[in-house]
Amino acid sequence: MSASIKSEFQSCIQACQECLIDCKVCLAKMAGMKSMNDCPYCCIQCIEVLEASIGLMAADSKFSKEQCALCAKVCEYCAEQCEQHDHDHCKRCAESCRKCAEECRKMAA
Amino acid sequence: MSASIKSEFQSCIQACQECLIDCKVCLAKMAGMKSMNDCPYCCIQCIEVLEASIGLMAADSKFSKEQCALCAKVCEYCAEQCEQHDHDHCKRCAESCRKCAEECRKMAA
Amino acid sequence: MSASIKSEFQSCIQACQECLIDCKVCLAKMAGMKSMNDCPYCCIQCIEVLEASIGLMAADSKFSKEQCALCAKVCEYCAEQCEQHDHDHCKRCAESCRKCAEECRKMAA
Amino acid sequence: MSASIKSEFQSCIQACQECLIDCKVCLAKMAGMKSMNDCPYCCIQCIEVLEASIGLMAADSKFSKEQCALCAKVCEYCAEQCEQHDHDHCKRCAESCRKCAEECRKMAA
Repeated sequence: MSASIKSEFQSCIQACQECLIDCKVCLAKMAGMKSMNDCPYCCIQCIEVLEASIGLMAADSKFSKEQCALCAKVCEYCAEQCEQHDHDHCKRCAESCRKCAEECRKMAA
Repeated sequence: MSASIKSEFQSCIQACQECLIDCKVCLAKMAGMKSMNDCPYCCIQCIEVLEASIGLMAADSKFSKEQCALCAKVCEYCAEQCEQHDHDHCKRCAESCRKCAEECRKMAA
Repeated sequence: MSASIKSEFQSCIQACQECLIDCKVCLAKMAGMKSMNDCPYCCIQCIEVLEASIGLMAADSKFSKEQCALCAKVCEYCAEQCEQHDHDHCKRCAESCRKCAEECRKMAA
Repeated sequence: MSASIKSEFQSCIQACQECLIDCKVCLAKMAGMKSMNDCPYCCIQCIEVLEASIGLMAADSKFSKEQCALCAKVCEYCAEQCEQHDHDHCKRCAESCRKCAEECRKMAA
């Protein structure tokens, strides 16, 4: 992680970036597959808020906390959906979402 | 605007897309120029939340309202900053931000 | 479309923005649905290059032509896939992709 | 880095993600500062192509190579500009851009 990033943002940005890749992988691998729940629809939404959270934190924005608070909610929702699937990429995505939600809640506090 | 978009999202997505371009133009034209206020730093932040708002609305996400509520705040802040500059691109950006803030507040209501 | 945008970019940015929304709508509506071809996997890829094309043109970047050349290819591929589906959002997406590919080819020329 | 990512993409995605943060930090910190060269205008452009490269690689897209080839060029240009500045964030950005350009050239080969 860049030395330019404020130390209080480092672990949250890292968690968001890992979660972003795992959501993008899950979304791409689930494309065209039948699903009985919101995975990968949840990943689409998670990607949007993750990118905003990363961007605002990297800019040291005063709006970072609010964006991260919303991001935590979307990550929890995404984790709940993806963890119901047995695919490796879904399990992995759910795990990253849980971790990211925790980091985002800390940021938002 | 796409016929596929839910009618209640149409004017807000359009306002966000126009605002996004105006923020990107303002940011690019202000790059390397001395500024005494938050323009174009505000545009950087506005771009992040606008993209998330557009993405969530296009996906008909249940999180659209919360994202749009935050977007309205960032747009107001960006308008306040950019309207203090006399450049055409700043004036134009401020105007788009005001309009977008209004649409986002309606969406968030 | 913003008056701040260079006139030669206007129609291409507009086509990219419409295509972006139609790809995002198609992707969201296809999420969790079985597909026998690359729709909506193609939309995921199209979204990535569309956003880059829009961003580079808005910044009046010297790399716009190259990005638009690649964007034209991805849009053609996306149109070929989505037009094989009978859903309104797929038909609409394919149509926007064809139009956007044409605008991007003109930009890249 | 996610275990879900193809091993041949891992180091390039990681380099792109680090570079993305460093470009975003450099852009935000340079906002409103006078610059005699293309920094941070180059960062704006670099961010656009980095996000597309990350997205296409995460989706295991057949267009990844072409996007990474363009990304390598933009990263080199950004490195040349930012390394002329003495700010820590500019030096750091230039360094990440050089590393990312190398990874992207390998990917594109």
